[in-house]
Amino acid sequence: MQSVPKLSVPEKISHKEILEILDGGLKRVEASIRQNYQSDVAMIPLVSDYLANGGGKRLRPMLVLLSSRLFGYKGELDITYSTVVEYIHAATLLHDDVVDDSDVRRGRPSANAKFGNPVSVLVGDYLFAKSFSLMACAGTPEVVEVVSEATRCLAEGEVLQLVHNGDVGLSEEKYLDVIFRKTAALITACCRIGGLLGKASPAQYRALESFGKNVGLAFQIVDDMLDFASDEKTLGKPVGQDFAEGRITLPVIHAYKNATKKEKAFLAESAKEGELAAARLGEILSLVNKYDGVGYASQMAERYVVSATRELGALPAGLHCTAMAGLAEYVINRTH
Amino acid sequence: MQSVPKLSVPEKISHKEILEILDGGLKRVEASIRQNYQSDVAMIPLVSDYLANGGGKRLRPMLVLLSSRLFGYKGELDITYSTVVEYIHAATLLHDDVVDDSDVRRGRPSANAKFGNPVSVLVGDYLFAKSFSLMACAGTPEVVEVVSEATRCLAEGEVLQLVHNGDVGLSEEKYLDVIFRKTAALITACCRIGGLLGKASPAQYRALESFGKNVGLAFQIVDDMLDFASDEKTLGKPVGQDFAEGRITLPVIHAYKNATKKEKAFLAESAKEGELAAARLGEILSLVNKYDGVGYASQMAERYVVSATRELGALPAGLHCTAMAGLAEYVINRTH
Repeated sequence: MQSVPKLSVPEKISHKEILEILDGGLKRVEASIRQNYQSDVAMIPLVSDYLANGGGKRLRPMLVLLSSRLFGYKGELDITYSTVVEYIHAATLLHDDVVDDSDVRRGRPSANAKFGNPVSVLVGDYLFAKSFSLMACAGTPEVVEVVSEATRCLAEGEVLQLVHNGDVGLSEEKYLDVIFRKTAALITACCRIGGLLGKASPAQYRALESFGKNVGLAFQIVDDMLDFASDEKTLGKPVGQDFAEGRITLPVIHAYKNATKKEKAFLAESAKEGELAAARLGEILSLVNKYDGVGYASQMAERYVVSATRELGALPAGLHCTAMAGLAEYVINRTH
Repeated sequence: MQSVPKLSVPEKISHKEILEILDGGLKRVEASIRQNYQSDVAMIPLVSDYLANGGGKRLRPMLVLLSSRLFGYKGELDITYSTVVEYIHAATLLHDDVVDDSDVRRGRPSANAKFGNPVSVLVGDYLFAKSFSLMACAGTPEVVEVVSEATRCLAEGEVLQLVHNGDVGLSEEKYLDVIFRKTAALITACCRIGGLLGKASPAQYRALESFGKNVGLAFQIVDDMLDFASDEKTLGKPVGQDFAEGRITLPVIHAYKNATKKEKAFLAESAKEGELAAARLGEILSLVNKYDGVGYASQMAERYVVSATRELGALPAGLHCTAMAGLAEYVINRTH
């Protein structure tokens, strides 16, 4: 197995420093996340607690906080909207694990493995509904528009991914379309929310959007790359699980494109059936390594992060902007 | 098997007459429903078409249209919000069938039986998201609040129903709480939307709310009653399916309350296991008949409809009001 390549974009700011810049903001988001899913239906906070304690990275809330405070935003809505985007993300994870029939997420049993598929579907629905409830009360119609658009996009991305399941000849272009919808759209929405709260100028808003889109694409590419390049302990789930479940990602797409006719047939046959893919995982990983699928993906992720960082030039300089650059770099330097 | 009891509230207006009063409104809702789920992800309109052609009663859109036009509302938003509530309803049906592992709905294979659980989960999410997207564009924040609150309530009701699965000792009070959340809340929201669009006075708004709540409760009680009182052909799904799937409804609750100790034990044991419940369905139906569970439920539904109809006195008289009374009566006179 290949080790995670060290990327050339340096990490200029630590995660701890980003938290300091957020000045307790993320702690308040955590409190808000835990407070707002309280319900007299005890199963809902039970499952939601399990999710909230699952060690999520809170990338989306951090982006909402940073991109609003970048403009000196001092209100309370950044906390509310951080909760909203994290609920939508959590709902998606719940439903994803049902769709993929996953047993493990972040080194623990997935919620559906622990509580069953029906509970995961319904608590996911609750979190979707609650996120829109929170937005309705917060009363910024533009944000409702941004978030509902992103959520729609996200659902389309998930369906598209399902439709392309096992399709090893998926083009890079289509792959990018899927990951834009399923991941980058919501991350872009986080930056847009910040821009709306901070009353960014149209040019600043466009820069924030582009930053979010590029960070979001990089984030998903790295996620897909780590599935091949990391180890089970670091990853918190089995290596090669994406391919075993029929999800065709950039490292495989690159390998397939460059493979011999015989290798192409081997990959295509393996991708069609989950059991076959799982049994042949060693050979699949060798093929991906042979054509440096991981290196190719990591270079592309790096280019997106460079593009993201470039957009920051159009935004007010200062600690928050530095923290956003740090977050973008973290996205490609992370190991899980 | 018991036949559907004929209820004493007379049907004063036919379904055809209600459609005439709506003056093409429902046709425009149908067109809007089909237009707004178009997506470049072909699977989404494919599944949504299947649902839209499934012979739904469109009760919720009719309530939005009638309760806004009651006040002379002439705008276009009643069509949009009718689409919104129908999408939320459709999303719930999609997820319900996954949760219950149902094979049949309205006399055809359910969407999950036809397209698989993953597709049903994700297209449901798409319809949820799209409904909020439509609301965001329509720009009436109060409606977003009403609908998101109802959607949250709905999700809670579904979780609560799941938690109480197989619990044959469920109290009538808790049963009413579950059906209020899972069914009546969204139907109430339809009437509230109409009141908001039509600029109802506070007293009129309260009357509309109460009408919706009572109609919603009656609707679900009749649904639950028909599961025992109808036949498979009329019902479009097997008789006794609710009980076989562990859903404890009013006819069983009433029978259990009045049953002997031995019968109670029999019901409790049967309800716990789906297979046992299915095998013993004949005996269960006899027990429900012995204590007239269906008659009891139909009388309660009738009382709710009488209460609903009473609220109409506080609303502007005329054709729309008559149509609302007709709709309330249809709820208890329907056979499927």
